[in-house]
Amino acid sequence: MKEREVYLDNPTLKEALDRFFEELEDAGALKLVESEIVDVREALGRVTAEPVFARISSPHYNAAAMDGIAVSAKDTFGASEKNPVRLKEGVSFWPVDTGDPLPPGCDAVIMIEEVHPLGNGEVEIVSPCSPWDNVRGIGEDMAATELVVPENHRLRPQDLSAILAAGHTAVRVRKKPKVAIIPTGTELVNPGTPLKPGDIIESNSAMLAGLVEEWGGKAVVLEKVKDDFELIKQKVQTAASSADVVLINAGSSAGTEDYTSSCIKALGKLSVHGVAIKPGKPVALGYIAGKPVIGIPGYPVSAYLAMELFVKPILYRMQGLPVPKREKVRARLSRRVVSSIGTLEFLRVKVGKMGGEFIASPLSRGAGVIMSVVRADGLVRIPESKEGIEAGEEVEVELLKSKEEIENTVLMIGSHDVTIDILANELKRHYPEITLSSAHVGSMGGIIALKRGETHMAGIHLLDPETGEYNVPYIKKYLGDRRILLVNLAYRQQGLMVKKGNPKGIRGIEDLVREDVTFVNRQKGAGTRILLDLKLKELSIDPERIKGYGKEEYTHLAVAAAVAGGGADVGMGIMAAAKAFDLDFIPVGQERYDIAIPEEFFHMDSIQKILKILRSEEFKKKIEALGGYNTSMTGELIGGD
Amino acid sequence: MKEREVYLDNPTLKEALDRFFEELEDAGALKLVESEIVDVREALGRVTAEPVFARISSPHYNAAAMDGIAVSAKDTFGASEKNPVRLKEGVSFWPVDTGDPLPPGCDAVIMIEEVHPLGNGEVEIVSPCSPWDNVRGIGEDMAATELVVPENHRLRPQDLSAILAAGHTAVRVRKKPKVAIIPTGTELVNPGTPLKPGDIIESNSAMLAGLVEEWGGKAVVLEKVKDDFELIKQKVQTAASSADVVLINAGSSAGTEDYTSSCIKALGKLSVHGVAIKPGKPVALGYIAGKPVIGIPGYPVSAYLAMELFVKPILYRMQGLPVPKREKVRARLSRRVVSSIGTLEFLRVKVGKMGGEFIASPLSRGAGVIMSVVRADGLVRIPESKEGIEAGEEVEVELLKSKEEIENTVLMIGSHDVTIDILANELKRHYPEITLSSAHVGSMGGIIALKRGETHMAGIHLLDPETGEYNVPYIKKYLGDRRILLVNLAYRQQGLMVKKGNPKGIRGIEDLVREDVTFVNRQKGAGTRILLDLKLKELSIDPERIKGYGKEEYTHLAVAAAVAGGGADVGMGIMAAAKAFDLDFIPVGQERYDIAIPEEFFHMDSIQKILKILRSEEFKKKIEALGGYNTSMTGELIGGD
Repeated sequence: MKEREVYLDNPTLKEALDRFFEELEDAGALKLVESEIVDVREALGRVTAEPVFARISSPHYNAAAMDGIAVSAKDTFGASEKNPVRLKEGVSFWPVDTGDPLPPGCDAVIMIEEVHPLGNGEVEIVSPCSPWDNVRGIGEDMAATELVVPENHRLRPQDLSAILAAGHTAVRVRKKPKVAIIPTGTELVNPGTPLKPGDIIESNSAMLAGLVEEWGGKAVVLEKVKDDFELIKQKVQTAASSADVVLINAGSSAGTEDYTSSCIKALGKLSVHGVAIKPGKPVALGYIAGKPVIGIPGYPVSAYLAMELFVKPILYRMQGLPVPKREKVRARLSRRVVSSIGTLEFLRVKVGKMGGEFIASPLSRGAGVIMSVVRADGLVRIPESKEGIEAGEEVEVELLKSKEEIENTVLMIGSHDVTIDILANELKRHYPEITLSSAHVGSMGGIIALKRGETHMAGIHLLDPETGEYNVPYIKKYLGDRRILLVNLAYRQQGLMVKKGNPKGIRGIEDLVREDVTFVNRQKGAGTRILLDLKLKELSIDPERIKGYGKEEYTHLAVAAAVAGGGADVGMGIMAAAKAFDLDFIPVGQERYDIAIPEEFFHMDSIQKILKILRSEEFKKKIEALGGYNTSMTGELIGGD
Repeated sequence: MKEREVYLDNPTLKEALDRFFEELEDAGALKLVESEIVDVREALGRVTAEPVFARISSPHYNAAAMDGIAVSAKDTFGASEKNPVRLKEGVSFWPVDTGDPLPPGCDAVIMIEEVHPLGNGEVEIVSPCSPWDNVRGIGEDMAATELVVPENHRLRPQDLSAILAAGHTAVRVRKKPKVAIIPTGTELVNPGTPLKPGDIIESNSAMLAGLVEEWGGKAVVLEKVKDDFELIKQKVQTAASSADVVLINAGSSAGTEDYTSSCIKALGKLSVHGVAIKPGKPVALGYIAGKPVIGIPGYPVSAYLAMELFVKPILYRMQGLPVPKREKVRARLSRRVVSSIGTLEFLRVKVGKMGGEFIASPLSRGAGVIMSVVRADGLVRIPESKEGIEAGEEVEVELLKSKEEIENTVLMIGSHDVTIDILANELKRHYPEITLSSAHVGSMGGIIALKRGETHMAGIHLLDPETGEYNVPYIKKYLGDRRILLVNLAYRQQGLMVKKGNPKGIRGIEDLVREDVTFVNRQKGAGTRILLDLKLKELSIDPERIKGYGKEEYTHLAVAAAVAGGGADVGMGIMAAAKAFDLDFIPVGQERYDIAIPEEFFHMDSIQKILKILRSEEFKKKIEALGGYNTSMTGELIGGD
């Protein structure tokens, strides 16, 4: 086997940041970017490289602040209802509109509403005015030499207008830090290429470039390089000579074909390789020719965090700006999370406001699950000193969305169904301000979440073996003390999913025990699992006899994926999942999928809007089109609570 | 005199919005913009026009999640320290790197750290693994057909990466709403044109365009049009046929040459003309050919508010997005503000955190003062039903900056000095995270602000006539119960400012009483005013004899501007102000300008950083260069507290 890079040490995030930034500073690799002069009208969002002082005053002349007549105030002294004063156009008054300069000798403006025309170019006024009444004097807005905006200021729309009014047409701003992004990896293929096993779509650099742009930089994504030390080295060297920062994506862990860290070492200084964080551990930090060079890990979540933790502060620093901090909220963690001592973990969480408090629910912790970042509302740091966080413990959440968006999010925890995605989308379409956020933990997981007050609603399909009734007996048993309303989502077909053409010739539940058949199961508490167990009981089949009964997946799609991928021959789930993976579907029975909503949430405006969507013909048509659904009761209240 | 447009009614903001949006809706003028297909890599910040479902699963094959060896888990069963299991390369194990596809027959990966090489292509392991250990199964990140992002979703960097990983190369997004901006007004000149009285720099459209861009639209600024009904009409008609929204800037009030509302009336429907808000009253709201057309007032603050209140909701609506709400804080108003019943006033305020609470200080209320928007940290609404707000009353502030920025702002209320602008800029340059925000209310105003706990520090230059001592006697008298530290900003020259060449031949204070001389004064409580009054007393001059003694300005620059503009022949102030306006300067005396800082704030990190700047040679050099300053004590503590 080939030689491998090893991590020399494993500093904490703080140690790594301190060491890296100190070395960058010493190497002169954290300098402000150069400046350039741009037209004020094209300077939105740019950062000033020097203070802008007013060249001229605004107004630059004494201006009428009203439509009316310009006068010399002393000509109006003594005017009253009894003794009106008469003025003559061109002699003692001049009509002016707002913004007009005061004619010579005038020092006040009388509003048009207070002027009584007499004809023949004469008017009468019945009250005196004081000097400078209704006049915008020179410099009222800004006086010449006054500071309009300081250095290190990101220009907003109102600043542009003020700078123009201050007599400037151009402004000196910092250039955008240029960031070269080098995707590496023999396994990478460009988006759109037909895929074979082992191919990985080069999708990271779009995220890296997007983050760079959001932080004020200019991203240059270079053509991908295969895992070849000399090729990568050459590309990095060229990039370091033309860009302000270089990012090498992937190849930063200690794997066989990971050349990033040795490349930084060969061309410059490697300050840190490997940090005690999760995800993001394999990051490589160094500099080449006075330019920061960062080896960004290949897993997308690790890449996201490495960007956030190491690249963001560099870019802001180079622009002379403070790093903006995220809004934070205190929240209660919905589930227990175990973590490793010595590692700082960044947990992605969904956040919802339940009554008065925020609840954070952990999302998938895999470094490869970019959807956990897409779905996340926030990040929770589990410090190096902790072994994890207990359910119900209070945590600090760094928000990835605004608090307002989170307050407008309806949480739905429970069983997975494809139609929930459609519901989420229809809701966003009709009511852009409301978000439906769903977590898939099975029907019993939903019931428990309701019990703990961690969700606004739960999606459940739980068959009671005693009564043959769906959902109601479970609500009564586990939530008997609460008033819960049940609204039907749909009736749906459950069945066995097998490979296209059914190569193993599976006909039903009874074939699951065959020697040549491998099954993939759903987790305990899932409605589908309960249905399967009931069917097995009816057929007196011992689950122990089913190969793969112990392999559990959390969603219908994951089961379908396992069958499609060859991990199993058969799994149980809904027809939509089978269709999604082009599998054959053997119906086993119809079940009722309901949404359980506590009475205290039922009248929330957002939940009423969800019901409106559920009851719309448009929504029903869309889910009927998936196949395997019956919408005759969709959106209806189920009696029997 | 010419005919004038008059407002037909004067609805409240709510009435105006309701009427306008209802009419737009009825006219089909609030439709979603059309969509277009763009490359995913160019879709940052764009809004999805349809949901994005995964085309493929990710991973699309079963992938090694670790560097190590791929095995069939059953081959490892029973392995232990005592009974290690031996595996052979190419027979029972295959080396794999992270991301590699599992070879056929394999269902697990053993981490490289747990593999003991024996040579000859053989390895040993001492513990068993389970199926799917260290394997990223098909669809672990996302399963085909799963919702990646819904419709009406603004794409973030992580979304781009997820959409690419889901097998898409392009995405359907909404076009940016196209907004035509038509500057009108015969008095407008393009930026950079030499100015004559009455000329107004066309600076508004840069702000309007910037706001449109920030709200997701595409701004098209058209060439300015002079005040000619037919010309404007023609331009508006063309714009309405090609843009999604048309903004006509200025000409929206009821003045002589205001053609905006009549133009909307002639071409389409004028829904509202004039709203009971301040600033922003003259706004005109209507539609032409199914496109919203808004007459934006000419005063920049009115324009800013009209954009915010009427254009922003239209642009968000057209993109299918909710209008983001501003962060709000509760604050105590520092000064009493009187407002008109029946008008909703938008007060621009500076906000500072003083100890535990936020303090809002009103800025200039003029509709023409764009600097009040540049300087503002937030807006306070004074409702139609109120006559004003008392000092100390609690108000709700809609923040224009982040709470974090406000918490990092040091407030300095008191006398104006040009060097404070330089201090503010130097601070931002060295410490981008800290902002110095100053309000100019005179020295006594600063003392009162300290007394009320409304500022972190006050700039003062108050001469005690009894003792001839600066500042200390005033601190003792008004703030005797507080521990206050005084730090010197500079000694500075006070004097009389007269027009270049001193046309009236003024030699000193004694000439202010001359018949042919008009004076401009500073407000009561200003250090300069106190110095003047003392000098007058010394010379036994009755202030009543000075023409213009009653005309008060709030800053040195405003006084200089009044002299430069011909409003007065002479005013008192500092040399820097005279220089700024190219005036002659007749020295009257030197005074000490100090910064008073309560002990409880003195050790704040941000204030210590300000002291560091004050004490730097760089800062001292910059203010010496202004002329009229002596920095021998700058940054030093003044004894005698």
